[in-house]
Amino acid sequence: MKFEDIPTPAVHRLSFYLRQLEALKSTDRRTISSKQLGESLGYTDAQVRKDLAYFGQFGHPGIGYRVDELISQLRKILGTDKIWSVVLVGAGNLGRALMAYRGFLRKGFQLVAVFDADNSKVGQSFGDLNVLPMSDLQKTVLAQRVRLAVLAVPVESAQAVADQLVAAGVRGILNFAPISVAVPSGTAVQSVDLAVQLEQLSYQMNLDATEPVSPPPADAASAG
Amino acid sequence: MKFEDIPTPAVHRLSFYLRQLEALKSTDRRTISSKQLGESLGYTDAQVRKDLAYFGQFGHPGIGYRVDELISQLRKILGTDKIWSVVLVGAGNLGRALMAYRGFLRKGFQLVAVFDADNSKVGQSFGDLNVLPMSDLQKTVLAQRVRLAVLAVPVESAQAVADQLVAAGVRGILNFAPISVAVPSGTAVQSVDLAVQLEQLSYQMNLDATEPVSPPPADAASAG
Repeated sequence: MKFEDIPTPAVHRLSFYLRQLEALKSTDRRTISSKQLGESLGYTDAQVRKDLAYFGQFGHPGIGYRVDELISQLRKILGTDKIWSVVLVGAGNLGRALMAYRGFLRKGFQLVAVFDADNSKVGQSFGDLNVLPMSDLQKTVLAQRVRLAVLAVPVESAQAVADQLVAAGVRGILNFAPISVAVPSGTAVQSVDLAVQLEQLSYQMNLDATEPVSPPPADAASAG
Repeated sequence: MKFEDIPTPAVHRLSFYLRQLEALKSTDRRTISSKQLGESLGYTDAQVRKDLAYFGQFGHPGIGYRVDELISQLRKILGTDKIWSVVLVGAGNLGRALMAYRGFLRKGFQLVAVFDADNSKVGQSFGDLNVLPMSDLQKTVLAQRVRLAVLAVPVESAQAVADQLVAAGVRGILNFAPISVAVPSGTAVQSVDLAVQLEQLSYQMNLDATEPVSPPPADAASAG
């Protein structure tokens, strides 16, 4: 099976396995079974084994997985065994919060430049960096061989900035603007639409018929 | 088919359909076909029809979907046809950025209170609200019949705060702390782990053999 054919949710779970293994490692745990790894995340052991089997044979008979070994294999699969340079476009509240948030730029990602279209923000300090004008985007991306960008700009400018990023050579965009941006094939986009996450929660809670603040009309429960 | 049995990704796509339909509505578009709706999001028309068919029959022969009608049906399904009261725990950078970010608390969600364990933050203004101490959590959740919470606290306190929220009556948590929090059955959690999103991007870019900043070891491409 080619990597391209592996289901997205399985790849997504690799990140969760990695997170859990890193937490285990910090407690000096050496080995773990698929059952224990699954249980800690709410998956079955069969699920864990199936997900990992897409990528190779990582377990050891009678031992299970070696924590260190599986961490390094997962990092290699996910591409975080090397350092990716990242640029941020949008030095507003969200951009600042994201970068200040522990755990956002974990091992494997390094913020190398921050851009903003607002001239009043240009030159401001941003951690160890200074905010640069958009006119510097292309040369920075080229010079630092940047492939990943975080897009934290308003809806109105999201597509235009995405186009500039792609033109400059960026091949992966983490998009926080609540619209879908179009990119050419060969460029990856992950959109984090927080309203979508809230809607998904509200859907799950609807299932449980939890009473909302303003009661739904009488026929709401029969929708579908 | 019961709602519980509908695949999560299909429910997730409902949010994207809704987003797209709302955008269309703002341009006064009245009707749309499954093909057009799908194309605008990169899905096939068969996918769109299949996703919607889980919930009912929404199309009209020779017309397609009526934009207004499908918006209201999707909101009903997702539970955003009513107003959910939301509390935020964590009045730090991330909490402030989330709430200031347009599109986060869209139609259907209303922030009713903000809490922080840090006494120096208590009493500070937060939009139209003032930050409250954690000791007020339970009575506020009860009094305002809050069911949804946004968790924007450090890793160390995430589980303890989640426990407090559940004990107070919250039944859905949007978790921004980069760990998985355990909740009893009947409570829904959506975790937004931004590092996971970056890893997923890096995985996709690995597929394209895009050259990273520090070249991978010679055997990296054969992992798996």
